[in-house]
Amino acid sequence: MSELPATFVVDLNSDLGEGFGIWTLGDDDALLEVVTSANIACGFHAGDPNTMRRVCEVATGRGVAIGAQVSYRDLAGFGRRSIDIDQLSLTNDVICQIAALDGFARVAGSEVRYVKPHGALYNRTVHDHHQAAAVTAAVAAYNPALPLLGLPGSALLSHAEQAGLQTVAEAFADRGYTAQATLVSRTHPAALLHDPEAVAQRMVRMVHTGRVQSVEGTEVAVSARSICVHGDTPGAVAMAVAVRKALVEAGVEIRPFAS
Amino acid sequence: MSELPATFVVDLNSDLGEGFGIWTLGDDDALLEVVTSANIACGFHAGDPNTMRRVCEVATGRGVAIGAQVSYRDLAGFGRRSIDIDQLSLTNDVICQIAALDGFARVAGSEVRYVKPHGALYNRTVHDHHQAAAVTAAVAAYNPALPLLGLPGSALLSHAEQAGLQTVAEAFADRGYTAQATLVSRTHPAALLHDPEAVAQRMVRMVHTGRVQSVEGTEVAVSARSICVHGDTPGAVAMAVAVRKALVEAGVEIRPFAS
Amino acid sequence: MSELPATFVVDLNSDLGEGFGIWTLGDDDALLEVVTSANIACGFHAGDPNTMRRVCEVATGRGVAIGAQVSYRDLAGFGRRSIDIDQLSLTNDVICQIAALDGFARVAGSEVRYVKPHGALYNRTVHDHHQAAAVTAAVAAYNPALPLLGLPGSALLSHAEQAGLQTVAEAFADRGYTAQATLVSRTHPAALLHDPEAVAQRMVRMVHTGRVQSVEGTEVAVSARSICVHGDTPGAVAMAVAVRKALVEAGVEIRPFAS
Amino acid sequence: MSELPATFVVDLNSDLGEGFGIWTLGDDDALLEVVTSANIACGFHAGDPNTMRRVCEVATGRGVAIGAQVSYRDLAGFGRRSIDIDQLSLTNDVICQIAALDGFARVAGSEVRYVKPHGALYNRTVHDHHQAAAVTAAVAAYNPALPLLGLPGSALLSHAEQAGLQTVAEAFADRGYTAQATLVSRTHPAALLHDPEAVAQRMVRMVHTGRVQSVEGTEVAVSARSICVHGDTPGAVAMAVAVRKALVEAGVEIRPFAS
Repeated sequence: MSELPATFVVDLNSDLGEGFGIWTLGDDDALLEVVTSANIACGFHAGDPNTMRRVCEVATGRGVAIGAQVSYRDLAGFGRRSIDIDQLSLTNDVICQIAALDGFARVAGSEVRYVKPHGALYNRTVHDHHQAAAVTAAVAAYNPALPLLGLPGSALLSHAEQAGLQTVAEAFADRGYTAQATLVSRTHPAALLHDPEAVAQRMVRMVHTGRVQSVEGTEVAVSARSICVHGDTPGAVAMAVAVRKALVEAGVEIRPFAS
Repeated sequence: MSELPATFVVDLNSDLGEGFGIWTLGDDDALLEVVTSANIACGFHAGDPNTMRRVCEVATGRGVAIGAQVSYRDLAGFGRRSIDIDQLSLTNDVICQIAALDGFARVAGSEVRYVKPHGALYNRTVHDHHQAAAVTAAVAAYNPALPLLGLPGSALLSHAEQAGLQTVAEAFADRGYTAQATLVSRTHPAALLHDPEAVAQRMVRMVHTGRVQSVEGTEVAVSARSICVHGDTPGAVAMAVAVRKALVEAGVEIRPFAS
Repeated sequence: MSELPATFVVDLNSDLGEGFGIWTLGDDDALLEVVTSANIACGFHAGDPNTMRRVCEVATGRGVAIGAQVSYRDLAGFGRRSIDIDQLSLTNDVICQIAALDGFARVAGSEVRYVKPHGALYNRTVHDHHQAAAVTAAVAAYNPALPLLGLPGSALLSHAEQAGLQTVAEAFADRGYTAQATLVSRTHPAALLHDPEAVAQRMVRMVHTGRVQSVEGTEVAVSARSICVHGDTPGAVAMAVAVRKALVEAGVEIRPFAS
Repeated sequence: MSELPATFVVDLNSDLGEGFGIWTLGDDDALLEVVTSANIACGFHAGDPNTMRRVCEVATGRGVAIGAQVSYRDLAGFGRRSIDIDQLSLTNDVICQIAALDGFARVAGSEVRYVKPHGALYNRTVHDHHQAAAVTAAVAAYNPALPLLGLPGSALLSHAEQAGLQTVAEAFADRGYTAQATLVSRTHPAALLHDPEAVAQRMVRMVHTGRVQSVEGTEVAVSARSICVHGDTPGAVAMAVAVRKALVEAGVEIRPFAS
């Protein structure tokens, strides 16, 4: 009896539902054809109740896993401003956001399946242990079965693991990596990759080999169960489509990490 | 074998958690010694996440049932301004509030047990069938097992009943009633009762007989499973304490309607 | 000596600066090439400080008059929900908005030259005398030299005149008019006109003769010193461009009413 | 001919108008009998339009100078959370706040006479040169005649001086000073002074000699044209009253620094 070939599996995640009231951002409908996990804004940096509900319904209808994209309370700055908030207040802000989105997810016939910090909170919890612990505490209090999606090696994933939570590492399709497997600073000219085909093949290779080429030219290990793609510009959507197409053609199974 | 005497049962409810950030309103701790149901603000007219969590924890510790006190989105006006919001948006605003509070209630080891509109939304859904239907739709979508607490004869309770939801009628301890058993308008000199002892005896009689004296002097039928008391002034707390004491001394069992 | 021919003069106004933070709405830059008066959002329904400043600077650079587009406090509903707010609070909300925008206008080297209510506040002050009086009181308190731009025959313009304020009537380029010279309800199929050329010629005729054809086919008097055009869709911008072009070609001078 | 005796002059300033909507904080009326300069909240950390207007009117009626107490946009955190906001956005947020308050000040018959940062923005601009420059730029753009009130030696006052703005140093009546004339950290047991009489005499001596006793026991030079007092607790008001009384009895003239 012959063995089945090893199957490569990956998840595609993207930020969705980032409008507010009359304002929209990005092409949610196009992205929901591409991704398997939707990081849905929960009202603190974006995401009014109408948007939260609608995106939860469409995501559920397409079998896309719903994640709570939690943020600082900062509509005016779109959650991109780091805020010195005390741990308990941050924990409670995160609980509030997960719970609100979970309400809409359950009304849609699904539920929140994971949590991913947004913007400045994402970046800060890479290094800030107090805030990483606060986000972890929120997930542990709300539902310790929820995985945290984040940057490999971050303080956030480290705290989550220590707290017994499941963690999921993500790679960024369009970001350059250093020889140390960290993201190249956005101020560096090679921070962002722009060629959809090159990005797509890079991700196929990452899934198959666990490696990407760093900006220095060396090979670095990047092991990720999920790949983050963007949808806030037409070019971004085209790149996300190209990544998905290349993965499918390479025989990679695209499937949510959470279910 | 002798029969047990018939037992009179009533619930006491009050608005709680109506601060925001640094600002507080009313004496939550005192009220939580008096009431059996806490209408907790959910962030739209009052109630930041820290407050929501703390009040849920204290309420749970004292066996007080947690209710979602849902409102228009109006921090600046404390939810006291009637707003012409479309039905779907109102439904989604209410879902968002119930869900957020439910998160904190569950973290505290309890859950949201009922829903009561606040302020202008309470008053408007007495008559406005569109908004009454919108609030009802929110409860039905979120959890059709949740009762709606409101004014007897209101459009809200009527819609809720038609939708198959459980409804609970409340009486107001300190409000005058007309001969038609409606509340006397706040502009009328007899709108508010001020004597704690008189109010307490009035409520004892209401529980025992289902009747109160109207401002015209006639007897009117007021049948309520819950009595609303206030806590936003020292005098209000004293009146709430007096009502509870008189009911207990009269052998009335004070117990949440929802569990 | 021959007399100079009579000159027809009109102003073009449009809503601008209606983004918030990361979110944008409409094509401000295109509109600022078309209009002579900019109704700039003041932060209550749209318009963060960065946007307010930038639009004030561009408007000033192009000689476009800056108007305060005042609204209910309602970011989530974009100021399109009528709100039962007491008169003093509405007056103070309006003062706050005019003053904030005036700050940015003066930093840009100009100043607020007029006031126009937005959305639900515009519609409500057509009929609601309490709110019309409240808006009027705000302008009178802040700067009684500021004209109010609004609908001919509205309660707002009536109150403003009684208060000794200057009023400016506007016509809507793309709206149908009834035989009574009021706007056709938006639910009516003829509420909106869609043909840019027809709209442009209609406005040329309105400026020359003070008349438009009503949806019933009759001629009605519409006398307006300003014409409101829109810019929130590509089609709207094209129509605004067409109106301006037709007016210029017909020899109409396009000039702000306020300076 | 004999010379007039040298006159000692000082200003008393306090934070006022720090409620929001239904919520109040501190005893504005009591403080307005004590201080000569009112740092009035401008809506970003506290201060709705009704409150701004009322406090401006009472301050003006009592001859108290109105200052704009500018803050990060942070109602939920009362402006006590340091925020990494870019310079231009901070500048524009500060312009917006000064302008809004100036509107109410002018409606009250006065005008904004100075600017003082609040809370986390105050603390951060002691050291952060980017944010200090941003606040300075706002004042310079809005009205370069407005003085900035702040901590002696702070980055803020340094930037303001370089920009040609007038600066005013303040002392804190109830705070301990180090031997280096900086404020003792709030985590230190001697951070706060509690005895009203001792605080009052300390301030009299500071005004007369330009010196206070440090927590180490040494004398340090503290030269301040204004003294900051608080009013958020009954004890704070009593201390403010004691400071004023002692200064008056010692022949010190209490007068605004700005007029």
